[in-house]
Amino acid sequence: MPEHVEFKGYALTDPKKWSDLKVASFQPKTFAGDDVEIAITHCGVCGSDVHTLTQGWGESHLPLVVGHEIVGKVVRVGGKVAGIKAGDRVGVGAKIGSCMECRACKEGQENYCLKGGISTYNSEYPDGVISQGGYATAIRAHQQFVFPIPDQIESRHAASMMCAGLTVFSPLKTYGAGPGKKVGVIGIGGLGHYALLWAKAMGAEVYAFTHDESKMSDIKKMGADVIVNTGEKDYHKEHARSLDLIISTRDSYGKDAQGVLDEYLSMLYVHGKFISVGLPDTDSPFPPVHAMSLAMPGCLMGGSAVGSKKEALEMLELARSKGIKPWVEEMPMKECKKAVEGVKANRARYRYVLMQDIDN
Amino acid sequence: MPEHVEFKGYALTDPKKWSDLKVASFQPKTFAGDDVEIAITHCGVCGSDVHTLTQGWGESHLPLVVGHEIVGKVVRVGGKVAGIKAGDRVGVGAKIGSCMECRACKEGQENYCLKGGISTYNSEYPDGVISQGGYATAIRAHQQFVFPIPDQIESRHAASMMCAGLTVFSPLKTYGAGPGKKVGVIGIGGLGHYALLWAKAMGAEVYAFTHDESKMSDIKKMGADVIVNTGEKDYHKEHARSLDLIISTRDSYGKDAQGVLDEYLSMLYVHGKFISVGLPDTDSPFPPVHAMSLAMPGCLMGGSAVGSKKEALEMLELARSKGIKPWVEEMPMKECKKAVEGVKANRARYRYVLMQDIDN
Repeated sequence: MPEHVEFKGYALTDPKKWSDLKVASFQPKTFAGDDVEIAITHCGVCGSDVHTLTQGWGESHLPLVVGHEIVGKVVRVGGKVAGIKAGDRVGVGAKIGSCMECRACKEGQENYCLKGGISTYNSEYPDGVISQGGYATAIRAHQQFVFPIPDQIESRHAASMMCAGLTVFSPLKTYGAGPGKKVGVIGIGGLGHYALLWAKAMGAEVYAFTHDESKMSDIKKMGADVIVNTGEKDYHKEHARSLDLIISTRDSYGKDAQGVLDEYLSMLYVHGKFISVGLPDTDSPFPPVHAMSLAMPGCLMGGSAVGSKKEALEMLELARSKGIKPWVEEMPMKECKKAVEGVKANRARYRYVLMQDIDN
Repeated sequence: MPEHVEFKGYALTDPKKWSDLKVASFQPKTFAGDDVEIAITHCGVCGSDVHTLTQGWGESHLPLVVGHEIVGKVVRVGGKVAGIKAGDRVGVGAKIGSCMECRACKEGQENYCLKGGISTYNSEYPDGVISQGGYATAIRAHQQFVFPIPDQIESRHAASMMCAGLTVFSPLKTYGAGPGKKVGVIGIGGLGHYALLWAKAMGAEVYAFTHDESKMSDIKKMGADVIVNTGEKDYHKEHARSLDLIISTRDSYGKDAQGVLDEYLSMLYVHGKFISVGLPDTDSPFPPVHAMSLAMPGCLMGGSAVGSKKEALEMLELARSKGIKPWVEEMPMKECKKAVEGVKANRARYRYVLMQDIDN
């Protein structure tokens, strides 16, 4: 007889009321040998949750439970799971499955599965079940997407590392942030504040770019070596051709943004990289760039999507060994409406973390 | 008493007749301790010559002598010059000077001089002299931009290596073309045919992308492992997420090119790089790209501008050791009108080389 299990989560049912999330039951994917079932205790609130709830990335499945910065306790593991057991404290990020057979999966880049992988929410499993996220009682994920949390890191701190932290850690690591390198971070919100913390911990000289004067004293405490006010005219000229790496968390480019990418690129040193981790809505492409802006300084612009398990474990070890703590605000999960609206309005300082409050 | 020297070259004087080049005299830069003076024997014809003559990159100085794929014999060296002497056969590419003091110059990336450097033609020297190119009797260049040609390489072959060859060699080398790597080349003209030859010689698996069926049998002879006809619908789908590096020589993107960059990027493997070495006219930016196209596969798009002396010497050694010969058509320098018009009309198979014919 097939199992009958129900999880509960704060679900969107009417996209016209994008932040109106009510507790609803849903059935999880069929439990498989590689799966880990986790009783969720904490879930961070990510900009992706807002893009998906507002249908900015396209029409979502309904009902929709978002949330992909998950920490909880393992309650069950499948027969093929190694290194994770019931009772362990673990985290799950923005992906929960992949084919495990393509070149990317085999090379330990399962977050870039060539078949697309399974996103933590709003993604369809082969068995037809739609994945549901972490504003919920529990989740099932493939073991490759489940990361043990070191004892020294509190759950409220680990939660937002699972997406915000990992998303910026991966390009910092891939593109060589470290001693002797100048790293710029554009936009100091949830992702950006992690980029400052990690880049500094890796030994880089860190330049924070923001137009928000209310954040500047925080940014100094986070360890930025230089704070650049992008609201000032010609802010970029002083930094022309000097940065080795820029991590941009910017996720919207309005009509007034013409030429802004050329300004960002103009600050890169030879072979420097501008890596965008912000994902604007589908109808908002990057402002146009001229080939000259890339060729003359020999620089690159690229993107990055979360990170691999290997990178997640390295990130957690960096946080553990250096005692790095994100700046978070906790609230009970029932306040998820306030949280997603706060993220949309850029009110978070610097990440909201929801704590479990649904009766099982 | 200051020296009075005159060189002669095929010069543009009236931009309305962009291909009408007449022999005129001009005074070279003041000879300095780091300078090498070269009696020009050969000069390749580059797309840059056409962009500059047609004023596509902005208004040029006049009179204007173009040409930056220069080979000739050294006739004089300054007191600081080391390793180059009168009588040597040498080449000069698209740059002839730089500050030699900035971070890029000191790190052996003088082609990316942070102060901009001096281009081989249409660039202003500190002494106010405008640089003039290689459709001429002679040129003066800083020793860092003068490359000794190995005896085994004929001048008619070496000429177009100086810009076309080096411009694609540099990103192939920088971004790891070699055994086990899949390299795509978009646009098989002067630069593209070099990219095929070098990438193959470096040991990569080479994919040639062209819509020009008249070139396909040549491309096979050049050693491409796979030829992809970009005129076919969905040509890119078969190669989705498979290439490690794409060198694009495309230098124009019309209004029908919307979405074409997304197609190119869709063929890149994780952390794959799309490097544009084509430089469209100033009024022709890249078609817009969405952050998703870069983030989802974790890929990058970048540019590259010629190469360093170190890379030029490596390229020449590769050509020497493997006996690599470009496909060129020679003609006397007085036929430069026919040559530049032929380049504009994509008639070259695959590079024109002008041979000296001006009486001194």
